[in-house]
Amino acid sequence: MPQSGGHDVPVQLPDGVPAPDGLVEAALGYEAALMTDDLEALEEYFAPGPSTIRGDEGGLLVGRETITRFRGRRGGAPKRIIEALHVRSIDADHAWLAAVTAPLTGGRGLVSQLWERQDGVWRITAAHVSAPPRALDRRIWRVVGEPLVRPTAAGQLDGHTVAVKDVFAVEGFPLGAGVPAYLAAAEPAPRSAASLRALQAAGASVRGIAQTDQFAYSIAGRNSAYGTPPNAVVPGAISGGSSSGPAAAVAMGHATIGLATDTAGSIRIPASYQGLWGLRTTHGAVSVDGVLPLAPSFDTVGWLTRDGETLAAVTRASLDTMDARTPGARLVTAPALADSATPEVARAFAVAVDALDAAGSEVGTLDDPAFSTDALDALYAAFRTVQAAEAWAQHGPWIEAHPGALGDDIAARFAWASTITAEAAGEARAALDGARAAIDAALGDTVLVLPSAASVAPSTDADGAEIEAIRTATLRMTAVAGATGRPAVSVPGLTAGGAPIGVCFVGPRASDIALVERALGWSEILKHD
Amino acid sequence: MPQSGGHDVPVQLPDGVPAPDGLVEAALGYEAALMTDDLEALEEYFAPGPSTIRGDEGGLLVGRETITRFRGRRGGAPKRIIEALHVRSIDADHAWLAAVTAPLTGGRGLVSQLWERQDGVWRITAAHVSAPPRALDRRIWRVVGEPLVRPTAAGQLDGHTVAVKDVFAVEGFPLGAGVPAYLAAAEPAPRSAASLRALQAAGASVRGIAQTDQFAYSIAGRNSAYGTPPNAVVPGAISGGSSSGPAAAVAMGHATIGLATDTAGSIRIPASYQGLWGLRTTHGAVSVDGVLPLAPSFDTVGWLTRDGETLAAVTRASLDTMDARTPGARLVTAPALADSATPEVARAFAVAVDALDAAGSEVGTLDDPAFSTDALDALYAAFRTVQAAEAWAQHGPWIEAHPGALGDDIAARFAWASTITAEAAGEARAALDGARAAIDAALGDTVLVLPSAASVAPSTDADGAEIEAIRTATLRMTAVAGATGRPAVSVPGLTAGGAPIGVCFVGPRASDIALVERALGWSEILKHD
Repeated sequence: MPQSGGHDVPVQLPDGVPAPDGLVEAALGYEAALMTDDLEALEEYFAPGPSTIRGDEGGLLVGRETITRFRGRRGGAPKRIIEALHVRSIDADHAWLAAVTAPLTGGRGLVSQLWERQDGVWRITAAHVSAPPRALDRRIWRVVGEPLVRPTAAGQLDGHTVAVKDVFAVEGFPLGAGVPAYLAAAEPAPRSAASLRALQAAGASVRGIAQTDQFAYSIAGRNSAYGTPPNAVVPGAISGGSSSGPAAAVAMGHATIGLATDTAGSIRIPASYQGLWGLRTTHGAVSVDGVLPLAPSFDTVGWLTRDGETLAAVTRASLDTMDARTPGARLVTAPALADSATPEVARAFAVAVDALDAAGSEVGTLDDPAFSTDALDALYAAFRTVQAAEAWAQHGPWIEAHPGALGDDIAARFAWASTITAEAAGEARAALDGARAAIDAALGDTVLVLPSAASVAPSTDADGAEIEAIRTATLRMTAVAGATGRPAVSVPGLTAGGAPIGVCFVGPRASDIALVERALGWSEILKHD
Repeated sequence: MPQSGGHDVPVQLPDGVPAPDGLVEAALGYEAALMTDDLEALEEYFAPGPSTIRGDEGGLLVGRETITRFRGRRGGAPKRIIEALHVRSIDADHAWLAAVTAPLTGGRGLVSQLWERQDGVWRITAAHVSAPPRALDRRIWRVVGEPLVRPTAAGQLDGHTVAVKDVFAVEGFPLGAGVPAYLAAAEPAPRSAASLRALQAAGASVRGIAQTDQFAYSIAGRNSAYGTPPNAVVPGAISGGSSSGPAAAVAMGHATIGLATDTAGSIRIPASYQGLWGLRTTHGAVSVDGVLPLAPSFDTVGWLTRDGETLAAVTRASLDTMDARTPGARLVTAPALADSATPEVARAFAVAVDALDAAGSEVGTLDDPAFSTDALDALYAAFRTVQAAEAWAQHGPWIEAHPGALGDDIAARFAWASTITAEAAGEARAALDGARAAIDAALGDTVLVLPSAASVAPSTDADGAEIEAIRTATLRMTAVAGATGRPAVSVPGLTAGGAPIGVCFVGPRASDIALVERALGWSEILKHD
């Protein structure tokens, strides 16, 4: 009997049809290379060229180079034994096989491969891998249940399940904020955040507590302690953050509602990256009682959903309808805002604007100094300064008392935040006040339309500098709603290179409910374009 | 562009190599049949014969009949859209394809298929399916976390994770006992069960609360409310119960320790079915404080693990070592006990006994009236009568107040239990006392060896009568330890038809620690046989 890793490998052949010459040896050779993470040998076992294919629960990778890159960043496959090898010969040079694997950590996995003899050498042209299902995906979830917490009443959200970003109090559970040391010292919350109680009172149950960028101070979702949540629709791409866990949970169908926060774009950006609906509410419209602050001048509560109707229902259930406003009929774009976007996003966005225009939602172009390139640059600079000053005021003492508790990227951001002087923060506040007045004057009750992010979701391979450049470009766009406290809904519907991009509609303050309802119509236009 | 379910399906062909004639149409036809759960059409799309193969996270099914049976019990696949179809042509009559699917409930799935044209008709000869990962598997878990509850101290169980059967109090969580209506009315526990606190104090964290048969009154693991947990090592087989969730969780690698109860076999049976180690402790040796009773005269706390060393460590951490006894050197078998086993189990067990004997653990044969067929039948009859009387005394009032709250099988068992008269229960108790004295006299400090269950894990297809027959045969074997309060460790190592069977060693009362340590050696003998 052939062997792999010192264990017998029973080979199952249908009707006694023998395996093609050398195939089983090649399959076991590949397995040996996998167990030692011999990247060079592994690459050789895969057929060269752009059509070689490898898929698993994280998605489909096409092209040997893409597969090799994936393998390089994975850092080895879990150790396993092959329990059985089922070979289906096609001809002397082609065969399909399935290996039932027994990982040393338990469960059973399955690998299927299409092999082809190329110039005398057996190579994999296609592979499909199933690992044993996990108890939970710790990149997405900290705690999850069926349900974790029950609704408190029946209502319009009956049957809905909530992924709660780990910056909201959940009764009986400690709050972790994406930081293990913070979690370790936290006590169970005596009661849930007001915004969560509103969902439970409308019939929703809590599916679980979902991961976040550390202290919600990032838009990438790359949490060095818990891992980067997968982008449910773009294999190998980041989820976006800081509401990374709720976004991935909703996109993967683990929950129907993500309860999240948006200070600088933390709902709109992962919504854009994963084809979700996302609403940043009017600043102050939804209580932040029970929510860990980042920068109170900009912090808002909002939601991520897979469809607009659910978002509309959640918005109605959560917002007081008194004093609600209705946005004006006009849509406007601001060319200097779209300048931040990548060419592919700008092209897709232009098509969307044309479609909205053609469908009767007249789209004007803002030609106002408040939306000049210089004004937007200044707005963003002031925004990030005030955000940093408030974030440091909020978390600085804890961070100083817990050196090493944060990931390098977040620690560096807080370190910079710690350098903001009171004087600089004061100047930035004054600049923001002026910019806000100018933007209010320019927009009035019209709805500003812009891409929800500057790019599609970057690859998890992207280096820090690339992520930082994308961050700056995106935040310059999202800061308009952040700085003015306006509600902003990100609607899916565009794609670039197969990856989703959202269209963001920024309405007048307190227009949240009407804005989302209006967006249902805009979404139909974008869908049918 | 071809269509599926009203949506365009982009077909990706490498280097422009066209798909073989009719293949894409066949693939989309299969998809249409799947979406309407047209079982007849689906069967036709799969190649006839015993070598056709289909695998997913639940394991590999071989043979079209097996696949058809699986499909019949599944009740349809989740609705989905095909996002892309990647075709790799092999020759005019063979092709491999991968379909990226977008289930309507979120996430992305992947299906790969090997197709062959047989007599002019395209048929699937092999398929591999990946559904989007779930938030949690509700058949296994009710709540799960990373971790759910922290250790309270460091110790010999550092790094270990516990799957807690949902009959133990876990501080801050309600107890569900596998019954949704019971869970709905439960309050969060003020403190965790003593046996759980012992594990936490030794360094283990709680991974989650795992499913159980309703009120732990079954050995099948078929919970009609939450579903049957998968058998991690035998595709399509039941997990065994009542510690179904902890057993599946440990076997799948979701946790390293299952904290469970064994009244009549609820640890030993799932351990046997899934190749795990399992210990039923001496009755009374581990506190049942915080454990929902079933039948207090027999209820014990114990553990499931993937390896013997972990079980030994858990046993040491949980049991007071004072007054601990050591089992005698002799092993004995009782032929009338093994009579209950299926021929395949009996054969495998005989081989195990020979191996133990050959390795120097002399195995005697009990020739004692206490182990005659009649005596064992009487023992089991008395055991199940007392168990039923106590179970009804414990849960009868709640069950009567909540009609319809239980699954039909469990409700029928309790209905029978409700008919046990006080007189019948008293007679059964007296019979048990006599039997226990006779068994104690026959065994002394020797270790009784028997198969852990009468059969390998039955199929999830098995009907109620088959399950009931297996239940009776198995409980007749497990009742010896149950009725005498002796500790019993189930050690993996045997297989029949590819499925695991455990060997059970029943020691004298209070010999738990030494028994498990001794079992480490027996396990080595069984392994190398």
